[in-house]
Amino acid sequence: MFKRLALVTATIVFALGATAQKAMLVIHGGAGTITRASMTPETEKQYREALEQSLRIGHAVLVKGGSSLDAVEASIRFMEDNPLFNAGKGAVFTHDGRNELDAAIMEGKTKKAGSVAGVTIIRNPISAARAVMEKSEHVMMVGRGAELFATKMGLEIVDPSYFWTERRWKSLQNELLKEEGQKPKADLGVADEKKFGTVGAVALDKAGNLAAGTSTGGMTNKKYGRVGDAPIIGAGTYASNESCAVSGTGHGEFFIRWTVAHDIAALVQYRGMTVQQAGDEVIHKKLSAPDNGEGGVIILDTKGNFAMPFNSEGMYRGWIGADGQPHVEIYKD
Amino acid sequence: MFKRLALVTATIVFALGATAQKAMLVIHGGAGTITRASMTPETEKQYREALEQSLRIGHAVLVKGGSSLDAVEASIRFMEDNPLFNAGKGAVFTHDGRNELDAAIMEGKTKKAGSVAGVTIIRNPISAARAVMEKSEHVMMVGRGAELFATKMGLEIVDPSYFWTERRWKSLQNELLKEEGQKPKADLGVADEKKFGTVGAVALDKAGNLAAGTSTGGMTNKKYGRVGDAPIIGAGTYASNESCAVSGTGHGEFFIRWTVAHDIAALVQYRGMTVQQAGDEVIHKKLSAPDNGEGGVIILDTKGNFAMPFNSEGMYRGWIGADGQPHVEIYKD
Repeated sequence: MFKRLALVTATIVFALGATAQKAMLVIHGGAGTITRASMTPETEKQYREALEQSLRIGHAVLVKGGSSLDAVEASIRFMEDNPLFNAGKGAVFTHDGRNELDAAIMEGKTKKAGSVAGVTIIRNPISAARAVMEKSEHVMMVGRGAELFATKMGLEIVDPSYFWTERRWKSLQNELLKEEGQKPKADLGVADEKKFGTVGAVALDKAGNLAAGTSTGGMTNKKYGRVGDAPIIGAGTYASNESCAVSGTGHGEFFIRWTVAHDIAALVQYRGMTVQQAGDEVIHKKLSAPDNGEGGVIILDTKGNFAMPFNSEGMYRGWIGADGQPHVEIYKD
Repeated sequence: MFKRLALVTATIVFALGATAQKAMLVIHGGAGTITRASMTPETEKQYREALEQSLRIGHAVLVKGGSSLDAVEASIRFMEDNPLFNAGKGAVFTHDGRNELDAAIMEGKTKKAGSVAGVTIIRNPISAARAVMEKSEHVMMVGRGAELFATKMGLEIVDPSYFWTERRWKSLQNELLKEEGQKPKADLGVADEKKFGTVGAVALDKAGNLAAGTSTGGMTNKKYGRVGDAPIIGAGTYASNESCAVSGTGHGEFFIRWTVAHDIAALVQYRGMTVQQAGDEVIHKKLSAPDNGEGGVIILDTKGNFAMPFNSEGMYRGWIGADGQPHVEIYKD
């Protein structure tokens, strides 16, 4: 009888221990030429508020006992809907004046993953990536086929014009002028606009499971159906409960070639590095070698340890954990 | 004077040592349900001869001092042109009755890479992947955009009907019948046809540099712009002189989720495993867990060590090294 009681008590304690797992969410909103000099106080305030809101939305999911996958999706959907970020509404334009969106999501426990690339009519590409993961036999779908699938799955479809924003349209015009050897027009006011950006989130839920997601419009003036690292599992997005969850932002070509997200996970798992050490190794050593690409990552492990290394001048980033307060940073210092 | 002579001699010896690097080429032509029972002597002979020819073509490049990249491309182009293999001519059909081709190539010294996905009019997708790598700022291009780029680069463009083969068309009809709950027609004669296949090559040149390449038509009856592992750097294709070169073939979705090619490279580099140990760990442990996917890989390191692990019933595979003789294997035993 006592033995039985002891067992029950032990089970309750264990269960409490499991639910006492600290829920944690880390997000980014893009990396690049983001300096105090290039930012007005109003713009900075807008970004800070948007990042805080995204953190609160994702954290609310975790607090209620929701999955890390749900938190990542909710947090990213908010940023996709916000024109400040290069994802969903606010995405940059291709050379042909289109908005072609890429996204991926991955679950650390099962290593299930889904991704879409080159889609033009899906309001929330991150939800399309999740539908590919959960409702198809495939991991990656591109272009018209991915759109057809998302439509069949009942995702919100929008006219391509939904993604049009004046700021990004001007960015494209500037890039086109530069390509023709002309000076960018000052009145476009976006001379310092970074060429790339992304949004991403990594989360740890109360059950101790990790998830990662990334969504982007890619690079301004991209051509030829170019796909970057965001929808590539192992490059811009990766999650495994045995190592960590990673979402990247930066010059996608280099993130693919250096298999950035999986390389960080491999250094954690096979070399026993902390997430900070692994992130620094890949972002500050491998990626920072001459001509090896600019960008950053957010990384989170199952103990709630996180890191946000980047080699650019700034990265929109933030985290929210046990104190329930959103913490946001933008610049290097 | 003597000192100078010694230096010159040392340089010559070093140079000889470098050129004495053993050139090596390993290829695969797909993995799956390939058993002695399902193979006629004539069919087996056709496959053996084709694999031997592909090995000879790639090896001739290496013997002449050509790069591993050139050898990989030449070896794969031959298999793309041969209707026996699910790549280029002979590719399987999508649900909509199209041939959508994927390919990737990667150079181990520079970690430069290129890939194309969902292309329908490029005769040799592996050469298009190489053009993306060498003649664009991008790593991955998909669909019409990739075709436009390949056309501009002067690659050979064909009518989509070029890829039509009766055998693959029958396979699709069988799959469509199965999907409708009907029995596949016996006279189609392809009931045992594996659902996936790929061709790939990994090479080590006299300069000691690795390269890897993979090309495929994907899965019969694939839908929604599905992209498999072949064009995903780190999943189906990877090369680094610091670890090894890898090309995979199998159920692509699992190869993406397990980041197979880069995981093998990471086990070699970070855990000090041999290519055989790393390949066995990923193919026979991680991938062979329940529902974790069927397939195999070829792996080669800078010392010429290679491995060809697979967890399916067979894998078309072969290698050619110092003796200049092609060695081909098909079954498990």
